[in-house]
Amino acid sequence: MTEVKLHANVSSPFSCRVVWALQLKGIQYDYIVEDIIYKKSAQLLKLNPVHKKIPILEHGEKTICESMIIIEYIEETWPQNPLMPTDPYERAVARFWVKLADDKIPAIWRVFLTKGEEQEKSKKESLEMLRAIEDHAGLEKKKYFGGDRIGIVDIAFGMMVLWYGVIEEVLGVKLFEAQAFPRLHAWTMHFKNLPVIKENLPDRDYLMAGFIDYRDNVLAYL
Amino acid sequence: MTEVKLHANVSSPFSCRVVWALQLKGIQYDYIVEDIIYKKSAQLLKLNPVHKKIPILEHGEKTICESMIIIEYIEETWPQNPLMPTDPYERAVARFWVKLADDKIPAIWRVFLTKGEEQEKSKKESLEMLRAIEDHAGLEKKKYFGGDRIGIVDIAFGMMVLWYGVIEEVLGVKLFEAQAFPRLHAWTMHFKNLPVIKENLPDRDYLMAGFIDYRDNVLAYL
Repeated sequence: MTEVKLHANVSSPFSCRVVWALQLKGIQYDYIVEDIIYKKSAQLLKLNPVHKKIPILEHGEKTICESMIIIEYIEETWPQNPLMPTDPYERAVARFWVKLADDKIPAIWRVFLTKGEEQEKSKKESLEMLRAIEDHAGLEKKKYFGGDRIGIVDIAFGMMVLWYGVIEEVLGVKLFEAQAFPRLHAWTMHFKNLPVIKENLPDRDYLMAGFIDYRDNVLAYL
Repeated sequence: MTEVKLHANVSSPFSCRVVWALQLKGIQYDYIVEDIIYKKSAQLLKLNPVHKKIPILEHGEKTICESMIIIEYIEETWPQNPLMPTDPYERAVARFWVKLADDKIPAIWRVFLTKGEEQEKSKKESLEMLRAIEDHAGLEKKKYFGGDRIGIVDIAFGMMVLWYGVIEEVLGVKLFEAQAFPRLHAWTMHFKNLPVIKENLPDRDYLMAGFIDYRDNVLAYL
């Protein structure tokens, strides 16, 4: 069996996306901890020279970067417990939401790591993402984005169940109000209570402490 | 045969991506012109309520948004003249570059539509995209991103062959210097000389005039 290695960090929601997918597929892998914030390893820089980011999946001699691309690779390589539908239109719908997640989740990081006008603009963008999901993802009719079972879109928005709240708490702001986004809120409850998700989330206090330090370090340069 | 309609505009490089894919596949379609800048149609707002953007593909009752997602839908629905490889790893590599295009092409629009510090930051980001392609896409060994034939990554970067230069000329700046990026420059020559591309590009003077007006209108509010 070809060896699978994941370069990741428990504090990174993008890393957790891949962990969840590997666990859902029942794939054995080695977990290599990377310190992406304070000291990028030579190995990381060599494996992902374009973005210098985690997660990175090594599968034998092959290296795959970018969390959602890794997940499509996993899906195509290990077909058990499918994370995507088979119908081309349903696949396009899933990819639409995955792309929205990848395009708009950076806004909450900018809320976290900026001040003033840029922060306000990013708050607005982050709220627009929540509103788009609430109004257009059909969650009023479904437990998960794809229906009755967890799939690729749920994984893409997985940061909503922990990191989003931690960032809000560190900043003392509330964007994701349960009463304003009831469908999305109900989804977070379904998602985070799945054993595979619950057992593969970082500890909230650990994450909080790290994020407070990280913000202080970044803002010292602003 | 189920009817195919494309909502698009000839000035939009994202629209052109879909036109190229449809032409390469030999698919008949109706072209519905949308004025995305000055007057969005009720139809457009209804079909793409989340992004309110073109291109939009209608295939019978189905609506698909986001240019590269439309292209994956086209690829999965009409398998002739494949635009993607079949091997999962090669597909992941193609998706890596498609994602880079989608993530970084907005920087050149920001160069075009901003001033001062934000414009400088966006210029840097745009140059980083060019450098990543030049150094890491393997174009020294291949005519196109995927090898000897045009594929999805070429389509994703298609704006480099016309819109990029128009934006540079309107602004009076030069970012994409042929001598600094010789591999990428050679690729633009191969790509734009393909009949299917050449015959489906907007007229340069028409594009230039529209872009000058557009920039003046946007900057009037900055």
